[in-house]
Amino acid sequence: MASSSSQYPLKDELDIVIPTIRNLDFLEMWRPFFQPYHLIIVQDGDPSKVIKVPDGFDYKLYNRNDINKILGPKASCISFKDSACRCFGYMVSKKKYIFTIDDDCFVAKDPSGKDIDALRQHIRNLLHPATPYFFNTLYDPFTDGADFVRGYPFSLREGVPTAVSHGLWLNIPDYDAPTQLVKPRERNTRYVDAVMTLPKGILFPMCGMNLAFDRDLIGPAMYFGLMGDGQPIGRYDDMWAGWCVKVICDHLGLGIKTGLPYIWHSKASNPFVNLKKEYKGIFWQEEIIPFFQDAILPKECTTVQTCYLELSKQVKDKLGKIDPYFVKLSEAMVTWIAAWEELNPPTKAANGK
Amino acid sequence: MASSSSQYPLKDELDIVIPTIRNLDFLEMWRPFFQPYHLIIVQDGDPSKVIKVPDGFDYKLYNRNDINKILGPKASCISFKDSACRCFGYMVSKKKYIFTIDDDCFVAKDPSGKDIDALRQHIRNLLHPATPYFFNTLYDPFTDGADFVRGYPFSLREGVPTAVSHGLWLNIPDYDAPTQLVKPRERNTRYVDAVMTLPKGILFPMCGMNLAFDRDLIGPAMYFGLMGDGQPIGRYDDMWAGWCVKVICDHLGLGIKTGLPYIWHSKASNPFVNLKKEYKGIFWQEEIIPFFQDAILPKECTTVQTCYLELSKQVKDKLGKIDPYFVKLSEAMVTWIAAWEELNPPTKAANGK
Repeated sequence: MASSSSQYPLKDELDIVIPTIRNLDFLEMWRPFFQPYHLIIVQDGDPSKVIKVPDGFDYKLYNRNDINKILGPKASCISFKDSACRCFGYMVSKKKYIFTIDDDCFVAKDPSGKDIDALRQHIRNLLHPATPYFFNTLYDPFTDGADFVRGYPFSLREGVPTAVSHGLWLNIPDYDAPTQLVKPRERNTRYVDAVMTLPKGILFPMCGMNLAFDRDLIGPAMYFGLMGDGQPIGRYDDMWAGWCVKVICDHLGLGIKTGLPYIWHSKASNPFVNLKKEYKGIFWQEEIIPFFQDAILPKECTTVQTCYLELSKQVKDKLGKIDPYFVKLSEAMVTWIAAWEELNPPTKAANGK
Repeated sequence: MASSSSQYPLKDELDIVIPTIRNLDFLEMWRPFFQPYHLIIVQDGDPSKVIKVPDGFDYKLYNRNDINKILGPKASCISFKDSACRCFGYMVSKKKYIFTIDDDCFVAKDPSGKDIDALRQHIRNLLHPATPYFFNTLYDPFTDGADFVRGYPFSLREGVPTAVSHGLWLNIPDYDAPTQLVKPRERNTRYVDAVMTLPKGILFPMCGMNLAFDRDLIGPAMYFGLMGDGQPIGRYDDMWAGWCVKVICDHLGLGIKTGLPYIWHSKASNPFVNLKKEYKGIFWQEEIIPFFQDAILPKECTTVQTCYLELSKQVKDKLGKIDPYFVKLSEAMVTWIAAWEELNPPTKAANGK
């Protein structure tokens, strides 16, 4: 594995982004894995509350006052009272890679009982190519002891750059409110030892709990939308980002992987609260998903930014009919890109490669 | 799990098809799992050779003389001196389900050391719906302890009928000759505890070593092509079937699953012999795969047979340019359907649902 500094892969090229409303005691368990990296903590809710971070971590914390100060009027695109605020951290980072994790996620164990270094597996996923154009039945061909199987076209074996690594969760699965209500006791105990590329043309439900990506390749599309305070919807922040990101990755020839690494998700959120946040999304996604399935970006869109702005137009035109919320969201998408460009001036900004 | 008779699921509705050129000693290990089922043995090569089948199995053996007698001139569509001949077994079966396995495949063990009942897992895969229109990140939502994750559209959770269950291999992986030559010692030791639906619109390399399918839903498309004796190519029989089957399943709204169950593949075939059989395929697949990726079947094609005949025309038109072999193959595809209909008269024949 490539490493820019000592034994910690990409130490100077990766930030860890954590949205939170509470003291970050959960970091104690992650200390051996996270301490070498810089943390960007995005404090949600009341900015006067003091968030304690365990000693020894290198971090910068941004609360709502900081966000407002840094972005000015453009801060309107950053959600409040919702973990969607985490995407502010993606914007202020100056690193090539981001790993984001929820503060109720702990170190999981592999079937041999060993602690899983989730970050290292994400980096591995991001540093190896993805293969979205043909399915490899033995899963990740770049993992130890695996390869492309018979019948896999040789011209496709070089793969494409990996933009996103989507990790999974043992213990509490990421279910919607109706499923939580119906199966309150279901726990995920199945350790599936696989990483795979999501094929081109298929959408997936991207969860923000345990997620890594290449900021240079896809950062400007990692917008988590308008959720929480003052919005008609919650818990669709990562889904929104996932739909946009997948359509843009497919268009630009970038790959998304899902599977390993696992984290241990400790606490199910309240299904009644979740239902309230989700219920409009449950209706709306029935129209949103066909929209993204059919979305076509013109050839002229060769950067993430131009793709994203084009998508914002299509959102306004086609989803605006569902609810005025989508018009507001499409405008926030434009604001997000403007803010991104301001903080990441063109010479430094991502341009698709 | 549904079961038509006693504890053996689908006992009267499933045939096991085995192509072979030798005594079937390998069945001893499978006895507890296969003995309740009827076996169709397709003897390849010299028909005067006597194949020994262990006592106690209910089977019918067909050698080349039998194939010629049953199909007459249409026997030309059944390959000789190649395990592609197995598809004759699919045609003479009168059952709803087929499981086909190679005679160098043995019972594998799961990570707990327990023997894997591959047939039972295939049946489970076939009896539960497939979900080709959206990716579920926790894999098979119909397996114990799993479900659809947050963000999976509710309208798509009913799924579609599963037509094919593609199983995998521990020990010797199914590699092409170049990979075998480069990695002679690679063994697959990774037990990936997952079944997943292949998304719509993506092709996969279907291996015939450990494969089950619903004859009523997809049987007439399970043609393993012209391989072996007198043909310029070998080892692409299952690949050919897989490409055709995937395109037709996508068109008809049927699902294909891959993953569990594993079998233990005992013996790597000779990579030099394989290279000789494969090398034209290695070139040709670079053109064949884009052909299948772009293949569109007209709406009027509502049965597997009409889809397959339409595909045969497109093969002749578009692949005929690569080599005259594809013209011959397209004609064999037509012969295959004629033979299928003769042995499976319309009232009994599959019609897509």
